[in-house]
Amino acid sequence: MERTLVLDCIKKIGENVKIEGFIQIKRDHGKITFLDVSDRSGLIQVVVGGGSGKDLRPQDAVSLIGKVNKRPPNLVNPKLATGEIEIYTEKVEVLSKAAELPFDMGGKDLTLQLPTLLDYRSLTLRYPKVKAIFKVQAALMEGFRKAAKELDCIEIFVPTIAASATEGGAEVFKVDYYGHKAFMTQSPQLYKQMLVPVFERVFTIAHAYRAEPSVTTRHLSELTQLDCEFGFVDFNDLLDLLEHVAVEMLKFTETISQDLLKEYAIEPIAFGKIPRLTLREAQEIIFKEFGRDNRKEKDLAPQDEIDICKRTKEKNKTDFVTITHFPTKAKPFYTMPDPKDPEYSLSYDLLFRGVEILSGSQRINSYEQLLESIQTRGMDTRDFEMYLQAFKYGMPPEGGFSFGLERLTMHVLNLANIREASLYPRDMERVDIRLGK
Amino acid sequence: MERTLVLDCIKKIGENVKIEGFIQIKRDHGKITFLDVSDRSGLIQVVVGGGSGKDLRPQDAVSLIGKVNKRPPNLVNPKLATGEIEIYTEKVEVLSKAAELPFDMGGKDLTLQLPTLLDYRSLTLRYPKVKAIFKVQAALMEGFRKAAKELDCIEIFVPTIAASATEGGAEVFKVDYYGHKAFMTQSPQLYKQMLVPVFERVFTIAHAYRAEPSVTTRHLSELTQLDCEFGFVDFNDLLDLLEHVAVEMLKFTETISQDLLKEYAIEPIAFGKIPRLTLREAQEIIFKEFGRDNRKEKDLAPQDEIDICKRTKEKNKTDFVTITHFPTKAKPFYTMPDPKDPEYSLSYDLLFRGVEILSGSQRINSYEQLLESIQTRGMDTRDFEMYLQAFKYGMPPEGGFSFGLERLTMHVLNLANIREASLYPRDMERVDIRLGK
Repeated sequence: MERTLVLDCIKKIGENVKIEGFIQIKRDHGKITFLDVSDRSGLIQVVVGGGSGKDLRPQDAVSLIGKVNKRPPNLVNPKLATGEIEIYTEKVEVLSKAAELPFDMGGKDLTLQLPTLLDYRSLTLRYPKVKAIFKVQAALMEGFRKAAKELDCIEIFVPTIAASATEGGAEVFKVDYYGHKAFMTQSPQLYKQMLVPVFERVFTIAHAYRAEPSVTTRHLSELTQLDCEFGFVDFNDLLDLLEHVAVEMLKFTETISQDLLKEYAIEPIAFGKIPRLTLREAQEIIFKEFGRDNRKEKDLAPQDEIDICKRTKEKNKTDFVTITHFPTKAKPFYTMPDPKDPEYSLSYDLLFRGVEILSGSQRINSYEQLLESIQTRGMDTRDFEMYLQAFKYGMPPEGGFSFGLERLTMHVLNLANIREASLYPRDMERVDIRLGK
Repeated sequence: MERTLVLDCIKKIGENVKIEGFIQIKRDHGKITFLDVSDRSGLIQVVVGGGSGKDLRPQDAVSLIGKVNKRPPNLVNPKLATGEIEIYTEKVEVLSKAAELPFDMGGKDLTLQLPTLLDYRSLTLRYPKVKAIFKVQAALMEGFRKAAKELDCIEIFVPTIAASATEGGAEVFKVDYYGHKAFMTQSPQLYKQMLVPVFERVFTIAHAYRAEPSVTTRHLSELTQLDCEFGFVDFNDLLDLLEHVAVEMLKFTETISQDLLKEYAIEPIAFGKIPRLTLREAQEIIFKEFGRDNRKEKDLAPQDEIDICKRTKEKNKTDFVTITHFPTKAKPFYTMPDPKDPEYSLSYDLLFRGVEILSGSQRINSYEQLLESIQTRGMDTRDFEMYLQAFKYGMPPEGGFSFGLERLTMHVLNLANIREASLYPRDMERVDIRLGK
């Protein structure tokens, strides 16, 4: 007998079907056992008669043939797509027997501390509300890709092993590369720039590695970065492009993940016209309206970001604000200083609901200016030979931006810790299992 | 004035337009200079009058305003989408000046030796026929993703830093992970399996790292792997699924990359019904029809793969052959032995035009059998704690497969070396620049 997906059982009332999936919940009522069985299409209630359900266990992978029945009206579950039906069977074949679970996974929430959630990651990911996080994440990726392609970006795959610490600054992981020292790249930044003269517009979904020697709720040692880069653009083009990509990607996600966002009680996103403020303008507002004088800081404080977003939401009916012109010194060497005031740079962050979700800049595209910028920061131009080659042979005005996928997922779903937004998170203390255990 | 993409100039005959792009070719004719200018949409001929073109150089990034003219009928270039028009201008603004090129990039082919092609990678990638390789590669990725999604696979991003050498065997790169020893994963294999109980069907486009201590035309140290994994399937389902994905992905690529494939003189792919042979059956054919006795070998020899494909092409009008049942000992620990004859395994390769482009297997899904398989091969089950957790709590019958993206690109385009199919290839001798230089 051919397998039927549980969602398709809706169309087979009165028929016998074969379904296959995992037992999520089991409720014993004497001779009758109720099961919630899930497969990739959804969840369905199975009634096991004849006392044959008693040895079953949550997470058993099962196969069964049974009859699709309409539920009595008073037992319909309106929250479930299959809530008007159930399957009756007297025989369940166990394809793979699960060990006894170390904690209850049948409740409305999985009330586990983070270390336990991660110690049992291959199990806890199966919990529907945990799984939902990664369905939203897949939607974000798809929305990003769709938006980037509509802008004529071509997808590139760039290397993650490099001969030098790409951007200086932050800590990097060292690799033993055939006896030579090499590094895991901190971002696809330099490669996406090098490919602008080739493809003009590129995007990539890339792994990035940060050897952050600290444990915070917002940092991962291995993360996923969504990157775009555009040639023949000026600063205003870039602001238009980044806002377009962010909005299209979130609109797409909201549309296809409606149910999942509801499960996390996420409010609809406000997509009004996005205001653009320089860092100093934003700090001036914070000073005047909120009484905090941060006007000499090189970035917005976390509370500033929250307040600026709240204020904008009320005034402009949007959950986004673009902040521009961060101090040049606080930005990486490839960032273009504003020709009108080189102390500040043609850089930008996009804030969403109180948090930065995207950053980028117009880049230095002159070979000579780039050499000077590298040297001024005490770095060695010989470490950038292949990168500089791209500028030596003609580089148009260009710029781009990137999102951290896990951080974006975390904020869209209002999660407490970025580790919840990574399937198998890497940090200082853990590579699946705890280090030094 | 707004920029017009060169391809859109076709609709603006008689009008003044502003175009921006790179000079690909420059031909001087006294006071008149002819330029081929390219942007992301294509290539167009520009005629620069008034003697103002003489200082221009190939790879200069330029911006110019000029009039779109119809070319005289005898000067139409039928090979070019813009071949019926040209732009006349007397002023070209150089946005970024290119250094003098180290070799000619204006010919019909870029006749460089591989080391030079790679030493100047940021430059040689701009050559149209080199660039075309990566447009075909992007099409393969898109076709793969499309086929996998149609089969209900969800996209996952799995880590590349792991605590142990994932599959044993081949050499791995070691990473200094906060003072602990860690490794770059040889493939996303174990993680995609761990996610079958979560999502049932998954796909990923992942980086894989192989510390191959040899230099061949077919191996890279960092490569891109296209992976699928399916739960609740048997061996025949898997053969159907892999053939479906391979065919859909190549059909998609052929459709959207027609012009590029023509440039590489690639024949249309034959998509007849794909025959399935066990390894021993294939070797028997080689013995009987080609006179080579390899009937005890654990794999097909390269010439066997070529001959089997040629024979199938003639008989079945298809460029594909599926080979199954490789010896269990020659396959990784997670491969399911054939219950009817455990010396052979439920494994498969897909051959395409004489080369293996995909391999995979039904996996061992019993926790106990998996423990035994790991131990039998002299590996330590403690190195697989998180992986084994996925099997301990219920794992349905499952299996999958993977493609090497660069190898597939190489074969589709009939390239001589896999390095040509990687934007910035990593091997024993090179990380952009040559090591130990």
